[in-house]
Amino acid sequence: MPVNLPVPTASTLLPIKGIEIGIASAGIKTVGKEDLVLIKIAQGSSTSVVYTKNSFCAAPVTLAKQHQQQASPLYLLINSGNANAGTGEAGMQSAQRCCQAVAELANVSANTVLPFSTGVIGQQLPVDKMTTALPAAYQSLIRDNWFDAAHAIMTTDTVAKAISKQIEVDGKTITVTGMAKGSGMIRPDMATMLSYIATDAAIEQSVLDTMLHNAVEQSFNRITVDGDTSTNDACVLIATAQAGSSTITSIDDNSAQMLYQIIAEISQQLAHAIVRDGEGATKFIAIDVQQGVDTAECRQVAYTIAHSPLVKTALFASDPNWGRILAAVGRSGVTEFNLSKVAIYLDDICIVKNGEPASEYTEEQGQKVMDQDEITIKVELGRGMAKDTIWTCDFSYDYVKINAEYRT
Amino acid sequence: MPVNLPVPTASTLLPIKGIEIGIASAGIKTVGKEDLVLIKIAQGSSTSVVYTKNSFCAAPVTLAKQHQQQASPLYLLINSGNANAGTGEAGMQSAQRCCQAVAELANVSANTVLPFSTGVIGQQLPVDKMTTALPAAYQSLIRDNWFDAAHAIMTTDTVAKAISKQIEVDGKTITVTGMAKGSGMIRPDMATMLSYIATDAAIEQSVLDTMLHNAVEQSFNRITVDGDTSTNDACVLIATAQAGSSTITSIDDNSAQMLYQIIAEISQQLAHAIVRDGEGATKFIAIDVQQGVDTAECRQVAYTIAHSPLVKTALFASDPNWGRILAAVGRSGVTEFNLSKVAIYLDDICIVKNGEPASEYTEEQGQKVMDQDEITIKVELGRGMAKDTIWTCDFSYDYVKINAEYRT
Repeated sequence: MPVNLPVPTASTLLPIKGIEIGIASAGIKTVGKEDLVLIKIAQGSSTSVVYTKNSFCAAPVTLAKQHQQQASPLYLLINSGNANAGTGEAGMQSAQRCCQAVAELANVSANTVLPFSTGVIGQQLPVDKMTTALPAAYQSLIRDNWFDAAHAIMTTDTVAKAISKQIEVDGKTITVTGMAKGSGMIRPDMATMLSYIATDAAIEQSVLDTMLHNAVEQSFNRITVDGDTSTNDACVLIATAQAGSSTITSIDDNSAQMLYQIIAEISQQLAHAIVRDGEGATKFIAIDVQQGVDTAECRQVAYTIAHSPLVKTALFASDPNWGRILAAVGRSGVTEFNLSKVAIYLDDICIVKNGEPASEYTEEQGQKVMDQDEITIKVELGRGMAKDTIWTCDFSYDYVKINAEYRT
Repeated sequence: MPVNLPVPTASTLLPIKGIEIGIASAGIKTVGKEDLVLIKIAQGSSTSVVYTKNSFCAAPVTLAKQHQQQASPLYLLINSGNANAGTGEAGMQSAQRCCQAVAELANVSANTVLPFSTGVIGQQLPVDKMTTALPAAYQSLIRDNWFDAAHAIMTTDTVAKAISKQIEVDGKTITVTGMAKGSGMIRPDMATMLSYIATDAAIEQSVLDTMLHNAVEQSFNRITVDGDTSTNDACVLIATAQAGSSTITSIDDNSAQMLYQIIAEISQQLAHAIVRDGEGATKFIAIDVQQGVDTAECRQVAYTIAHSPLVKTALFASDPNWGRILAAVGRSGVTEFNLSKVAIYLDDICIVKNGEPASEYTEEQGQKVMDQDEITIKVELGRGMAKDTIWTCDFSYDYVKINAEYRT
């Protein structure tokens, strides 16, 4: 059961001029389930992608990076159910064959196709199944298909994750729609699980790249479910330039800032959706570390808390066992730490002040906050002005169940 | 159920001349359960201690460090059920009052008493209960009491952990006996949970310190259950000099090396016992990383695998889902990693060779190893001569259950 995550409806997801989406069932997941998504990007669009930093990145990641350097992308081919990771040279050939199949159907060059895969690691991609299903995906390309696509890219996700927003820029309505998938193996590093965001605005490539990097840095790169960085993470931002608005050529423009704002909001909401639907999650937790020397040490403390199995199981139990938070702060490796300046809060309830248990704290106060399904853990380090926030979930029986049973 | 961990029997634990142990029930854990241990160290002994590196170290750790600088320890006072951590200035006063109570009973100076606490973090120590029970512990001081002491220091441990060994040095029989406790919040940093090892050998302080540091470095500092470093870890090594053997003054002596060997063996067996009895553990896992540039990067890769909830739940499920191991190696942060040289083995079964799935590998082979309750994951980095090994356990429903229910 995802934590306070509304299921998107088809009518709330707005199509983007210049983007068409086709869907098919290749039988990679369960027979009959949709698992193949083809996204057509109109000529003249700009596309920016960030990928996983995992050294063992998957074959489609390696190939997508190569293709992106050679040509402007016209098609994205996404499959769920198989990650095509840890598959060696055979996996690279599989990814190439899939791109080639799209190229022949659409009469384009294979390097205009970017492949994306998500699912089980270490099994060869069933290429024949995919190429057999591809024509159905190609023939079903329509503009208004984000809802079904958001479902087709799911693996252990329990709900689809997609959002649309609109703004007026210079009298023109600009739409941004994004979708994402991800539930486990979530601790993105410079990218996320799979996420696709498109706008009909016109944005120069360098500005688009800046927008995507900044948005990812404040969203997908600030979440963790289990600390495991995937081999297949990727986040795509496409600007089709079909809204009729003038081209954005600088991030400092007023219109760029307005548009960036909603791209950032969509990124953050999709990232939060991944945590809210984190494997086995029953609570949505913000960890807010303030008064650090720099943001890096704030994140270091925040991730140490977020990855502590003891903190996560206490959150699952709604147990205000704040000693586990304190122990995590203490082992986070911040150098020359002056404990006598540290404060820790559960929402607005101060539990530690000047490094000591807050005299006014009562267990009842702590229990009241812990009983909530959304909690902010705030830590003040008392050594600087920097701050950073990350989001995570708790650790339940169901996390173990899902990951002990997945694949078997 | 601990993994292949025999329950020690009273008859296998050998007393150490110069060490007496008293036990009492102070009602800190459950009423009637023994939770207070007093260890008397004969005059003329040498004592070496390593403590947790957690910045939020507990009051007894802070006080024990101060006392150790002021005087040679004559008594160790250990309580289970309450960690006296995160308890601020009041916690320091509690630890001092306990030491003072021992000092008055035994007619020694309070700074010859080292306090140790283990249990729940963030609650004030019930000092009155402890001082009430102390005379019973003092009056029960006898030499042959390691078995009961190993039980009295337990918290979530399911079995006691203690070992004795003997060797002949220069015609004299020397005995070493050690005990440890620990099951969760286990990722010791320069020390362990609580461990006490004593020998009747005569060892100079500086040599004793070297022996303890080396032994801990290859045992307690190479295990992890959940990645959480405790606020209360401590490991004590005592040499009472009562075996009649000559004093060891250099670590390079032949007799020093022989003795160090069994101290190291006891440390490693106690450390392994903590992992075998790790909270919810069903498997005992060695992670052996070889061919690194230095041991630090070998450990970095090993701990990334050991802390991955996805790897740990796959081990629990006996699922040869080696893609999760590969993903963990890939995100471990080793710089300039050449994947084409990496090999990964489950016991002797090669699953990845030259960075690709091993052609001879079959799922049946992997399944056979994963069905075992003791497994070695070996990773060859192909970039140097260094290697290191750590030990961990799997991640089961019972880990969540134990930590969601502990304290509530």
